Amino acid sequence: MRDVHVIGTGQTPVTQGKAPSASHLSSQAVTYAIEDADLDPRDVSALYLGNMTAGILERQQQLASLCAHACGLTGVEAFTLEASCASGAAALRTGFMAVAGGFYDIVAVCGVERLSHTAREDAARALSSAAARDEAGRNGQTFLTLNATLMRHYLLAYDLSPEDLAPFAMTAHENGLNNPDALLRKPLDMDAYLASRMLVDPLRLMDAPPICDGAAAVILASGRVARARPARARPRVLIRASAAASDSLTARNCVSELRLPAAEQSSRRAYRQAGMGPEDIDLFEAHDAFTVITALSLESSGFAERGEAVRLGRDGAITRDGRLPISTMGGLKSRGHPVGATGLYQVTEAVRQLQGTAGVNQVRDARVAMTQNIGGMGATAITHLLEAA
Amino acid sequence: MRDVHVIGTGQTPVTQGKAPSASHLSSQAVTYAIEDADLDPRDVSALYLGNMTAGILERQQQLASLCAHACGLTGVEAFTLEASCASGAAALRTGFMAVAGGFYDIVAVCGVERLSHTAREDAARALSSAAARDEAGRNGQTFLTLNATLMRHYLLAYDLSPEDLAPFAMTAHENGLNNPDALLRKPLDMDAYLASRMLVDPLRLMDAPPICDGAAAVILASGRVARARPARARPRVLIRASAAASDSLTARNCVSELRLPAAEQSSRRAYRQAGMGPEDIDLFEAHDAFTVITALSLESSGFAERGEAVRLGRDGAITRDGRLPISTMGGLKSRGHPVGATGLYQVTEAVRQLQGTAGVNQVRDARVAMTQNIGGMGATAITHLLEAA
Repeated sequence: MRDVHVIGTGQTPVTQGKAPSASHLSSQAVTYAIEDADLDPRDVSALYLGNMTAGILERQQQLASLCAHACGLTGVEAFTLEASCASGAAALRTGFMAVAGGFYDIVAVCGVERLSHTAREDAARALSSAAARDEAGRNGQTFLTLNATLMRHYLLAYDLSPEDLAPFAMTAHENGLNNPDALLRKPLDMDAYLASRMLVDPLRLMDAPPICDGAAAVILASGRVARARPARARPRVLIRASAAASDSLTARNCVSELRLPAAEQSSRRAYRQAGMGPEDIDLFEAHDAFTVITALSLESSGFAERGEAVRLGRDGAITRDGRLPISTMGGLKSRGHPVGATGLYQVTEAVRQLQGTAGVNQVRDARVAMTQNIGGMGATAITHLLEAA
Repeated sequence: MRDVHVIGTGQTPVTQGKAPSASHLSSQAVTYAIEDADLDPRDVSALYLGNMTAGILERQQQLASLCAHACGLTGVEAFTLEASCASGAAALRTGFMAVAGGFYDIVAVCGVERLSHTAREDAARALSSAAARDEAGRNGQTFLTLNATLMRHYLLAYDLSPEDLAPFAMTAHENGLNNPDALLRKPLDMDAYLASRMLVDPLRLMDAPPICDGAAAVILASGRVARARPARARPRVLIRASAAASDSLTARNCVSELRLPAAEQSSRRAYRQAGMGPEDIDLFEAHDAFTVITALSLESSGFAERGEAVRLGRDGAITRDGRLPISTMGGLKSRGHPVGATGLYQVTEAVRQLQGTAGVNQVRDARVAMTQNIGGMGATAITHLLEAA
């Protein structure tokens, strides 16, 4: 298997009510990434595009071919990948296989979502298609009610209060302040967290991510091609591991057992591929869609024992100067969670950290970054490990 | 790159108004394929699922994880692939890369679509999402009107009549008669073709495929694993080439220039991978969604000069005893075109031919089969070459 390098990144600012179409957004991000890699579109041999809802909300499918053509990637292999909120990382995993397996030397990977142009209920209904119809449809459950139930169980099981989960959201907002592409650039302290609107008890507005639009992209290249390129000021970034896993869509494991088995499996597989463990990770771009999911993701990835992730928030470990900074550019909570794009925002941000170009938010001596993208209530989990070389 | 073998196939009958859900259909097909391969579900490491409309028509996304769990593929990597009508072959291409690239030894690939449970106009509107919104949406175009325009141009450009295209549909119906899983098992002669309802002049009902439901699946294995299995009565089937290409969604190339550039590129790439040419192909599972698309697909793949594909119909070359049998189990026209499943039906049928288990429809001395799956008006084209070894 060949080395895979990230040789370019691109992203649009996360916005609400401004994006003309998912096609437009994705084409921008891919074009930025090609420019960042200092390539001509004709150098790129394939495009893998993560998206969840363009078919439902825009009646636009075959988005990968549409985006490829708009970016001048004429005639390339172009597929759309869907794994609900983990669609972006599914596209990255596919692009990784295409390069590592020796099928192409240079490919583009993009994630895109446009949700804010429709009524909030329409967006919520589209997103609820990530759950099994039996559950989300017939019982009238949404991801808000499912996550509220999960949060209630978690707090009860470990004798915690919402204040224990609040640091996950507060850290994300602290980091998002300095990210010009973040949607919610405003500080969040405990008072503001507790004062935020209760959506479904005990889940508050400040436990949840905003409905928004955005696209992010990377250019992947084989080690041979990457090493043959002119030297650049910034360090190379390798993908050291790429691993996906799935689970039932019923949310049973997640809500009743307070576990994310797919996240456990995908992180275990990623560690094994890279010959690393949680102790090797310098920063973690978590799937902090809801504060309780952040906790479960940290526990699933071996960063904390079960029920003890909140300690990482309490003792400051997850801040930029802590021993495991998370959501270093604002995470899903503050930068925003444009569903199918999130997995790629996580990676473009991790790459910036590993290149030392994260500005005020730079994590010192960042060499190894982990990203974890989760679909639905843990029915998909995809983990990547990136390393500066 | 490693050899990739097809070691199991499964499919549901193509039906109308009977399938309870896309999830149910796909789970059946994958289960059949696992049984056919004489495997335990735990032997399978990943599932790649092609589907176009479940998000739109059933509000069910994350279908790959849902199907994997239902089939007992616990914890596997599971992604949904979308490339409109070529979604099935996109899933196959991804599964091929996963095995050929050395990521997994055994994976499942499935294609599924359920369209007939909704009103015909809803299904048509969902399918029109394969075109660029600017075109299909704002100008009120559908795939019927686009294909009618294409057919009119084709007939005019080459001074042909609808009777010249009819043999493509007639051959498909002739072959579908003996396929117990085909939807339309009835003969079609020239009189019946000409008497069929005019949908959009000059396109008749018998130029077009039926709206229907179905799922088909294959199990892929690395050469090492396939060769280590107990000997079976039937020959091994290798995937000798797997190639995808894309084009604009605007249908301009297709309708104005009477070409399918993506089909040309994907077949050229496939021939190059296998070191073969059109003369090596013993049977061709064409994407005969519309009779005029069959003609363009044959021309794009080097089986006929431009404007001359109809000769293959006229002189009987495409019949089971001809020199290039096509649509040997009924094709999209008679077996049916459950959109995201079609690419996999093409392959399960090609495998049956290469294994010598195609019954009455067996093509004599079939050693090399080609399948071509086309999305939209040629915005995606994916070609596979399979060989009996």
